[in-house]
Amino acid sequence: MTKQQREAVDARLRSATFDGSRPLEELRTGFAAMMGADGPPPAGVNLTDGFLGGRPAVEFAPLAPSTGAMILYFHGGSWVFGSPLTAQHLTAALVRRTGARAVSLDYRLAPEYPFPAAIEDGVAAYRELLESGVPAEQIILAGDSAGGGLSIITLLAARDEGLPMPAAVVAFSPGLDASRSGESITTKAAVDPILTHSSLQATGELHRAGQDPHQPLLSPALYADLTGLPPLLLQVGSNEMLLDDSTRMATRAAAAGVDVILDVTADVPHVFQSFEGILDEADAALDRAGRFVLDHLPAVTPIG
Amino acid sequence: MTKQQREAVDARLRSATFDGSRPLEELRTGFAAMMGADGPPPAGVNLTDGFLGGRPAVEFAPLAPSTGAMILYFHGGSWVFGSPLTAQHLTAALVRRTGARAVSLDYRLAPEYPFPAAIEDGVAAYRELLESGVPAEQIILAGDSAGGGLSIITLLAARDEGLPMPAAVVAFSPGLDASRSGESITTKAAVDPILTHSSLQATGELHRAGQDPHQPLLSPALYADLTGLPPLLLQVGSNEMLLDDSTRMATRAAAAGVDVILDVTADVPHVFQSFEGILDEADAALDRAGRFVLDHLPAVTPIG
Repeated sequence: MTKQQREAVDARLRSATFDGSRPLEELRTGFAAMMGADGPPPAGVNLTDGFLGGRPAVEFAPLAPSTGAMILYFHGGSWVFGSPLTAQHLTAALVRRTGARAVSLDYRLAPEYPFPAAIEDGVAAYRELLESGVPAEQIILAGDSAGGGLSIITLLAARDEGLPMPAAVVAFSPGLDASRSGESITTKAAVDPILTHSSLQATGELHRAGQDPHQPLLSPALYADLTGLPPLLLQVGSNEMLLDDSTRMATRAAAAGVDVILDVTADVPHVFQSFEGILDEADAALDRAGRFVLDHLPAVTPIG
Repeated sequence: MTKQQREAVDARLRSATFDGSRPLEELRTGFAAMMGADGPPPAGVNLTDGFLGGRPAVEFAPLAPSTGAMILYFHGGSWVFGSPLTAQHLTAALVRRTGARAVSLDYRLAPEYPFPAAIEDGVAAYRELLESGVPAEQIILAGDSAGGGLSIITLLAARDEGLPMPAAVVAFSPGLDASRSGESITTKAAVDPILTHSSLQATGELHRAGQDPHQPLLSPALYADLTGLPPLLLQVGSNEMLLDDSTRMATRAAAAGVDVILDVTADVPHVFQSFEGILDEADAALDRAGRFVLDHLPAVTPIG
């Protein structure tokens, strides 16, 4: 990261903090502003409001003919903040690189709707995609931060309900351990420019709402049975407290006989892929994510 | 893996065992036969005998104009078996996918030359490459099995001697823990069709020659300082006893702020990439390895 890139990243990060000392709506507004939800829409895609699984959703169509594949995207925001528009640039980055369409789910948030509301929404959305005729082998689940966790947790819940598995999952800096037991929670706290012990505790408590974190759908990196999962791509920065959510998930997935790629970029923060066009590392990681998606889709004829 | 693919793999594996009950030269001959060292040379490359760092070496030149990059390759064989020709198909597979040249080192083997002879050869070869004018940023270290370990151990020794770091390292199923303490040593023993407790013990003892395995250049996944390393690609099958050599190396590299990709393919054996053209997973993994190499080389004009 150059000095100029570092300053651009720092300036954006200073625009919002998540220390729990401010009212919820102010935090949500700050998060939306930081993520460019109100700014110009992403290039190269058309956005349309819709519904999926009983929830609002935003559909992303590539300007180029679609390959027929569909990305079901889950935005980040610690289970408390965010919307499809806060992740619109990340979602569009995947659409542009894959020629797939995407649908980004406005899943229910804590504290109004704590665990497991978001997971119920994720599974309902995936089920409706399947019922609408999109073949499972043409569906990719993807998400960032809490949404990266939700992509994998939705996958686990869908498997347990007997639904067919999608082609693959792409998770950017996923949260996969609500018990916060990774070494990186401590060892990376000083270099993580985004997350803090207090922010993780505050949002984690809102999401868990008193539930024990030591269970598969809250801490899948530690407690979930991972057998039978489709290929996983876990991308994470080395400067994040959630680093070991991904290293431990990858280790357990490998042990369970799952195709998994753990892709760690040095010296970059949580969800660094959102700095497309600013950080070279973001563009390179998104290119790898796009190739991973294409590697796992059947060869298809564009259907327009 | 299809049934047909499985049978092809099994047939080749049955042609050699490494249980230590047969004379060394017979084992070496069997290993060479299994790996196609005496069969037809790989397509798409020209092989030339040479020397590097005082050791014999085989140079691989792509038939297409070279990009100017150079792969320094270390063959597998448990530190006891093998030669540049036993890895010729793997080396050629990287050359064909990258347009780079390669030089595969005939490093000294145990028991005649135990630890750290091979490492001395690796560093001498890397040093001579640099002194011959190949820029560090155009050198890739690569290897399989023990040679995958040697690629990373050579890197560590070169760093400690103050040599500039190469562009990246590609390690196929690397051996990175001579103390054999990974969980996969036990949990994957029943599904690993190649390695056994007794073969690992027999070859490990020949290599260590009484040295304590609890040291950085024998068990780098556990004991090496990994700071300052260039990007690493660790490819490993989920059906191998050495799986956790890679998962632990990746976890510690990430903690040390190193760019690292841990790339696990489900349900395939040790150095499955050597089954190019037989296993689809081999071809796909080699494609990813080739893209990783190209991602980390400077854009260069072909020099012929």
